[in-house]
Amino acid sequence: MMGEMAMEPGAVLAAGMEAMAVSSGVGEVPPGPAQVIPRSLADLVERPLHAHLATVRPDGTPQVNPTWFRFDGEYLWLTTTTRRQKNRNWQIQPAVALSIADPDRPSRYLEIRGRVERIVPDPTGAEFVRLAERYGMPQGPPPDAADRVAVAIRPRRTTTQ
Amino acid sequence: MMGEMAMEPGAVLAAGMEAMAVSSGVGEVPPGPAQVIPRSLADLVERPLHAHLATVRPDGTPQVNPTWFRFDGEYLWLTTTTRRQKNRNWQIQPAVALSIADPDRPSRYLEIRGRVERIVPDPTGAEFVRLAERYGMPQGPPPDAADRVAVAIRPRRTTTQ
Repeated sequence: MMGEMAMEPGAVLAAGMEAMAVSSGVGEVPPGPAQVIPRSLADLVERPLHAHLATVRPDGTPQVNPTWFRFDGEYLWLTTTTRRQKNRNWQIQPAVALSIADPDRPSRYLEIRGRVERIVPDPTGAEFVRLAERYGMPQGPPPDAADRVAVAIRPRRTTTQ
Repeated sequence: MMGEMAMEPGAVLAAGMEAMAVSSGVGEVPPGPAQVIPRSLADLVERPLHAHLATVRPDGTPQVNPTWFRFDGEYLWLTTTTRRQKNRNWQIQPAVALSIADPDRPSRYLEIRGRVERIVPDPTGAEFVRLAERYGMPQGPPPDAADRVAVAIRPRRTTTQ
């Protein structure tokens, strides 16, 4: 099993505070991630489409890049490396957003807003290999496997058109 | 001609401060917007592709949505309405980012980071009509024309793969 990488203290605190706010409510159970995704648009997370991932840089300006992803019913999983700017961004601001459009009808889209909750070292590149397979580009571990991390985003809200 | 809408004081100040920082340099002329876009990827702003636009919400979390756009050599122009969240976002944080992927080869993409510099009332929906034509969906002004604005983003930096 892969171990869990400690996040920056600020990120852990922010996530913890949010969780406390939820659990101090009036007993309502917040919807699970799978319920957050509208059923009518669930194909957009099931199909191997590219998501455009927005993160916030330490200076407060946004960044957005296309990314592979998969949804396991709880988390959206990505692969990246510890050397990428986005991996620094979400350790300071764990809130991220993804935009996924239907290539057959681009006005049909899903925006998912959520938080990075887990950054898991992936030195064998297993998440990369898994995603490459999903995206129809089967291949072995990447040359930068030693720096790879698997990143888990918990969906919280969606917007659509 | 369309008039210019005043932005929030904070946004104007932020844009002005950045301009001062540039002009207080050693006399270098910053590259123009057309030079910011790599020639090898210029087709990604010329073709009627959907961009995924990232903005930062007042609470510091990111938002990202697909959008029509056109590039006039200086600005990337969008159409939206004064009622959309993104139109509130960039009046507080004028920095935005767009991700445009080649649908024929999604690993070929361009991220453009820039700033919203102009928000122009467009009560006839002219920018919407122009973009609808560009995107192969010719039509008249939209029902919400009265609230429409044309928004100009100046590209400053790009990243790519």
